[in-house]
Formats: sequence, C-alpha cells, structure tokens
Amino acid sequence: MNELIETLTTIVGKNHVLTGMDLDDYEQDWRRRARGKALCVVRPGSTQEVALVVNACAVVGASIVPQGGNTGLVGGSIPNSSGTQVVMSLRRMTTVRSIDPENMTITVEAGCVLQSVQEVVDSHGFLFPLSLGAEGSCTIGGNLASNAGGTQVLRYGNARDLCLGVEVVTPQGDVWDGLSGLRKDNTGYDLRDLFVGSEGTLGVITAATMKLYPKPAAQLTAWAALASLEDANRLLGLARRHLGSCLTGFEVMNRFALHLVDKHFPHLRVPMWREHAWCVLIEISDNESEAHARGLFEGLLEIAFERGLVADAIIAESLKQMHDLWHIRESITLAQTAEGFNVKHDISVPISLIPEFVRETDTALATAFPSLRFVNFGHMGDGNLHYNIQVPEGCDAKEFVQTNEERISTIVYDTVSKYRGSISAEHGVGELKLDKLVHYKSNVALNLMRAIKSAFDPRNTLNPGRVLKSNR
Amino acid sequence: MNELIETLTTIVGKNHVLTGMDLDDYEQDWRRRARGKALCVVRPGSTQEVALVVNACAVVGASIVPQGGNTGLVGGSIPNSSGTQVVMSLRRMTTVRSIDPENMTITVEAGCVLQSVQEVVDSHGFLFPLSLGAEGSCTIGGNLASNAGGTQVLRYGNARDLCLGVEVVTPQGDVWDGLSGLRKDNTGYDLRDLFVGSEGTLGVITAATMKLYPKPAAQLTAWAALASLEDANRLLGLARRHLGSCLTGFEVMNRFALHLVDKHFPHLRVPMWREHAWCVLIEISDNESEAHARGLFEGLLEIAFERGLVADAIIAESLKQMHDLWHIRESITLAQTAEGFNVKHDISVPISLIPEFVRETDTALATAFPSLRFVNFGHMGDGNLHYNIQVPEGCDAKEFVQTNEERISTIVYDTVSKYRGSISAEHGVGELKLDKLVHYKSNVALNLMRAIKSAFDPRNTLNPGRVLKSNR
Repeated sequence: MNELIETLTTIVGKNHVLTGMDLDDYEQDWRRRARGKALCVVRPGSTQEVALVVNACAVVGASIVPQGGNTGLVGGSIPNSSGTQVVMSLRRMTTVRSIDPENMTITVEAGCVLQSVQEVVDSHGFLFPLSLGAEGSCTIGGNLASNAGGTQVLRYGNARDLCLGVEVVTPQGDVWDGLSGLRKDNTGYDLRDLFVGSEGTLGVITAATMKLYPKPAAQLTAWAALASLEDANRLLGLARRHLGSCLTGFEVMNRFALHLVDKHFPHLRVPMWREHAWCVLIEISDNESEAHARGLFEGLLEIAFERGLVADAIIAESLKQMHDLWHIRESITLAQTAEGFNVKHDISVPISLIPEFVRETDTALATAFPSLRFVNFGHMGDGNLHYNIQVPEGCDAKEFVQTNEERISTIVYDTVSKYRGSISAEHGVGELKLDKLVHYKSNVALNLMRAIKSAFDPRNTLNPGRVLKSNR
Repeated sequence: MNELIETLTTIVGKNHVLTGMDLDDYEQDWRRRARGKALCVVRPGSTQEVALVVNACAVVGASIVPQGGNTGLVGGSIPNSSGTQVVMSLRRMTTVRSIDPENMTITVEAGCVLQSVQEVVDSHGFLFPLSLGAEGSCTIGGNLASNAGGTQVLRYGNARDLCLGVEVVTPQGDVWDGLSGLRKDNTGYDLRDLFVGSEGTLGVITAATMKLYPKPAAQLTAWAALASLEDANRLLGLARRHLGSCLTGFEVMNRFALHLVDKHFPHLRVPMWREHAWCVLIEISDNESEAHARGLFEGLLEIAFERGLVADAIIAESLKQMHDLWHIRESITLAQTAEGFNVKHDISVPISLIPEFVRETDTALATAFPSLRFVNFGHMGDGNLHYNIQVPEGCDAKEFVQTNEERISTIVYDTVSKYRGSISAEHGVGELKLDKLVHYKSNVALNLMRAIKSAFDPRNTLNPGRVLKSNR
C-alpha cells in the first residue's frame, strides 16, 4: 500500500497525506463511541484532486471513506478497523465559488463549515436556513451526504430541499458538474437527490448550489405548556392555519427531559416544567415586523387558551430570552449525558400518529423494563422525535445499557414500523443502523438500492459497508 | 402476441383490454402532433393488476407505455409505431385511499385527475397547490412521472416537492410500498425522487402520498406594466423580500404575447399591453385576510413606483377580475395557435440571467431569421420561460416551421446551454427531446442515467426509448 500513499502524495502534496501520526480527529466518531484505523488521511484541495484520488484508489482496489466535519452520529464517516481504507477529508475545499443575489443562490465547496456559510450569506443580506447543533463543525458536503435536518425544517425543509445542484466525483473518478442554479429542470433522472443522502457511498459531493431566502424582518419564540401530545397536535394544526408559512419551528419536550435540564443546569431556569406534562417551543419568522409577529403569536395563543389547548405560555420579550429558551431545548442532550448512560432513537412517524405511537411505545417499554425513564423531545412539526431512554435510577447504568439496549431499541423500532415510521429520521444509516435497515426496510427497496450501488460503484470503492452491507 | 392479449384479459377482464377499435385517445398525443400504434390498451384496476400486467409483458419481452391523462407535451405517453407495445392506462385507479388532516397528507391512486384531487382536498378544508393548464384531464401519476410544474411552484414547489411517498410497480413486477406520510426519513437512497420525473421508464407509479397546505385566507392578484426584464427581476427581488413566502406566482408576458391575446380574444380586454414592453402577473396567498393581503400588495407597489420599476399597475378588485387576469395569461398558448404555426421552447435559466439570456437569444434569432416574432412568457419566479417563436408574417407558416424549426431551436438551446440552463424546465424529455438531451447533457450524467435504467430495467420493459435512447 506504500505505493498508493506515494501516488496520493504526488496528487495532493506531502503535507496533505497524513499517516503514522495522531489521526484521532479522522478515525474517531463525534460521540466517541467508535474508532477505526485508516491507511492514511488524504486532503485534496480541489475537485480535480478529488477525482485523481478516487481514480488512484479505485485502480488499486483501495476503498475511500469521504469525510466532512466528522460530526455524524451513525459512524458513517470514519474508517473501519482494517487499516486499509483511505479517509478523504474534504475540509480543505472551503471556497465560496459564487453568490447570486438575484437568483438567490450560493455555490460553495463541500468543505465549507455550515456556520461560515450562514455568516457569508448573512453578510450579503440573506438567510441560509439550515441550522443544527453541530453547525460550528459540520460541513455542507456532510450535510448533503447525510441530508441533514435541524430546527427550521418545518418552514425551509432539510438539506435536500435547500439544494439546487451538486458537483460530484463518481466512483470512476469522473466529475459530474450538476451545479445548477435552476428551480426547474426536467431533463432526465434526478441524480442530485440520489447523491444527496447517500452518505458518500455513490459519489463524493465536492460542491453544491444552495437556495437562499430573504432575511425575515423578525423572529419570535414562544414557550407553552400543554397537558398532552394530543393537545400539542391540535396546537400545531392551529399554528399552521394561523401562522401559515411564518411557522418556522415547533419543538416538543416532555417533563422528564426538562427535569434533567433543570437538575443539571439549574441556571437555565426552565419555565413551566414542574406543573405540566409537555412544553412546546414555537418559532415564527415574519417578513413584516416584530410587532406583526407578536400580533400573530398573541392571536394564536388567545385561541389556544380559549380552546383549552394551552395551560400557560410566554412569548420571548427579547433576543436574549429567545436564545435562552432555545438553549434549554438544545441542552437536553447534554443533560442526558450528565445524567449518565442512555439509549437514543431518532425516529419519525406521521404527525397525526405521534400521541398514539408514544403511548404505545411507553407502555411496551414500561412493561418490559419497569422504571425506565423516558426522555422524549424533538421536531414535532416534522413528525421527528428523539425518543430516548434513561436507565432506571440506582442501577448500574453502563451494564444496563450493554445488556438491554438491543431489546429496548427493538421495542421502539417495532412500534415505529407498525406506525409506518422511519427508524432514522435525520441521522442516516451509516454503520450503526445497517442491520436494522435490513430488518425494517422492504426487500424491494433494499434490492433497488443494491442495484444502484452496484451500477454506480461496482468495485465498491466509496464508503463500502455503509448504508448497505458489503462483502468487502 | 395474441397469447399476451389473452393473458392480459385474464388479469384485468375482457372489458379492460382494448384492441382493434378506435384507440385515438391512447395512441395520439395531446397536441395531436404524434401518433403511434399499440398492440392493445390494458386498463388495470388495482396495483396488484398493474404488477401482474408488468410481469406478463416482461416475461414475453413486450414493452409497456404507462399512461395517465395523456396530456404530456413531449410524446412520452403514447406508443411507438411498431404495433407491439402495450399501453397501460392507469385511469381506472381513482381511489382516494386516505386523507390525514393532522398529518396534512392525502394518499391517492395514480389515475386520480388532478382537479378532482384539488376538489376533494378543498372539501376537507385544505389546499392542494399543484395547478396547471391540463388539470381537468391530467392525472397525479402523470404529474409525478413528469414532475409537473405549473403556476404555484414559486411558493409550493413542483410535483416532486409536494410528494412524500410513492407506491411503484418495478419493471420486475414487484410492488414497492413507498407510501410514506413522513416529512423526514433518512434510511437509504432517495428512491422516491428517482421514480418521480422518470417518465415511466423506471417503474409505474400506482399511488402517492401528497402534502396538503392550509387554505389561504385570501388570494390576490396584481397586474403591472414594466419597461424591461431587468425591472421585472428587480421587482421580483423586491416582492420576495416584501411579501416573503406569501408570494405565490410571478408570471411575465411580453408585449407581442399580449398583442396576440388581444388580437384573437379581444373580449378579454388585456390591460396595459400597448404602452409597455412587459407585463407581470403577481399572485399572493395570505393566511390572515384579504385586507392584509391588499395592504401587502399596496406597500410593494408603492415602493416599486417610487423606484421607477413599475409604470402602471392594478390590483384585482374582485374574484372575477382575478380570474380574468389569469385567463389572459393562460390564453397566450391558444392565441399562438390561432395565429398559426409556431415553435415552442420550455426552458429555464438562473433567474438573474433571464434579461441577458433573452437579449442574446432574440438577437441571434433576429440575425438568422429577420422578422421572426417573439412570444415570450412564463414563470419568471422559477426562472422558467416559454420562449416561443411565431413565424414571420406573410410567409407560408407551415413550410417555414418545417424548414427552420431545427435551426431555430438549436439557436435557442445553444444559448440556454451557454447560460447553464435547462432545455426542458417542466415538460420533460419523452421522445421529443431525446436527441437534444444527448447533445446538451454531459456524458457523465447520461452514463449515470443509463446505468440506472439498465440496473432497474435490464429487459427494457418500461417505456423504452423515452428519456434515454434504446436499441430496442
């Protein structure tokens, strides 16, 4: 394999082929639950270099793990343990190739960090609405490869919806220039959406043209307490009618999730959680003014109070209060970590079925494992829940998880499947959910996916064994 | 082939295998420019019957042309002239399988006529926003197979964007149940979007789950006169900022297009066209009230007047006036037909480049063909123009078109290509643009498309020779 490293060095220069040193950042996953061993890390600086690297690897039968910010949660962007895979980091490709204000598009290279794209766009007077926890580290290429979601999907859609075109290096080392700034293009199969969400298994996304939006005149956040998920659903329906497309986010949190935040981060002053089973965080973006946004919100909450849907509510009075409320929502994961070992699920079901799904899953789990603690929160407006489990108090948490994680997840996923939901709403498949996918996805779908993989990448050069199992 | 017809009769019943009779509706295209000859027309009544039909044809090597309302404009849904193809009409599959108000989705079978879906959804208090000229005849299956656009794409997206899931019969006769009501699902490759827009060449869409929207409280239309496309672009940018996501449509029409409407349908009373080079039709949907919508519009037009972008404008005072204005826009095509032979193009370019594109194409055409007349109109908000040509006055129109159509289109498409546009924005490829696609699309993209077709349909059972050429 030394010969391959030499070839790669010729392509990208010796400073950009890393080997025999500390490669933690590239070999270990974001949650530090998995670690692989790479032959080397190669850091191409241009699309042409990416193409040459792919070709060089394909020729000698080496496989490549494309990597952006390496913030994925399903082990899809780290090498396996063989020590033979080449990690290809796109992080050097950070050029903003163009901004077109009249077309409301930006074309960026794959290695651009999401937050830096948000900032560039903001400085041009526009909004790039993709927003998620890892935005300070994750890259646009990774966002697209995993079809990232986040907190504004309800209004603006996920990464797929924000993408108009991609530039891709195929497993053969060809460059497909699909960088289109077009809103409409019906000239053949939708290759763009095939690459988006394929987790680096069908091609390497090297650049993308993304949609921009006008900056809203105002953003406003409300926090409301509710008695049940049924009420949350009714409130969501009301909000969609009353706020129209101004409705930007609708997040739900159960009492125990907020209790954990209150317990571990008491300075965050979580409102309303003690007296109510559920709280929701509602966000609107308004293109008129803050006063108009406030009027809309007040109108919504007035009706909601009248109908008995909402027990208590506040509208953020300042930008600081708005950030504080979001900070509570975003601290749930950290509070879970502080509390100790847990089991996480990123699932979706049709929005209408959320209350029934949660009731049935809670009951099934509580029957199998008395005194489990349910941390339930997520993007209710998208039907996407982070249905997580905190182990019973007082037990050996690590052992409990090791012994029971599989059985717990099976109960959750079986119920998801019964409700025609998804076992991975926004995190993807990667390595973590490979077996689950085979179990829960239909054979017809799996065979179509396998046919695509074989047709695009017969030598299994790109990220083998992710999304789909491989013999390699 | 009589054996196949017998088998098909066994599957769907003898009333639903049509042969040896008048098959005009199935064998001739919407614009009556092309006609084929079918072995027979088979009309399955269920997904299971579709699967059996596909299987029966595949086994004996017969090919199938799936057909919905047969309103396509690129000859993709009629049989070729061989007399050996089976036309499979989905029009009997008209069941509305379910409506889920809380999930805001409807699941319908492929043969449902678009307008009937709009009406069912309306009767449940929601909006299904896909809207196009052929909506009284076209079917949801056809809309999805061709990724239909229409007049509300700017706000709600095209057919692809409105679709959450599809049920598909594969070329092997398997049924893929991808009828998902999920907003988020990252479990593998995006098969849905691969079938959507594939024009029946990869699978037969038998049902779909589509997104619904709250009915807007008010819809309002304005008509404005402008001096140039540059001003139209500035007005569009202003409208996007000022109206936010209320902006639903932004249609542009040149003077000659409106002159033709005025000439052939004088009772329509086209406003403002004589004195101004361009008119635009702007539509907004408002979730608050008509008064609020009117206020937004007045605010926008005030700024536009101040900046000198708009020379004259009216806001429709009644529903009738609104329909009248839209009727003018929709009569351009009929006025072109009344005027005589013409050459049509359905193209898109980045919105920012529209003025430059039109100037350059007009000039190139006028140089090559003095006294050509330019009918230019379309969905400017989507970057989609129907850049059409009316032959010079006084010439033998039919002969002129026959002699020069190819050269005219080449000039148009070459310029489209130079501006990184699409030679088929919303109509698709079908048979009509097969050769053009090979010329204007990159080999990398074409090879990826061919790889998908071969992987999904190695026997070339479904709609061979459409989208991609076949040896068959």
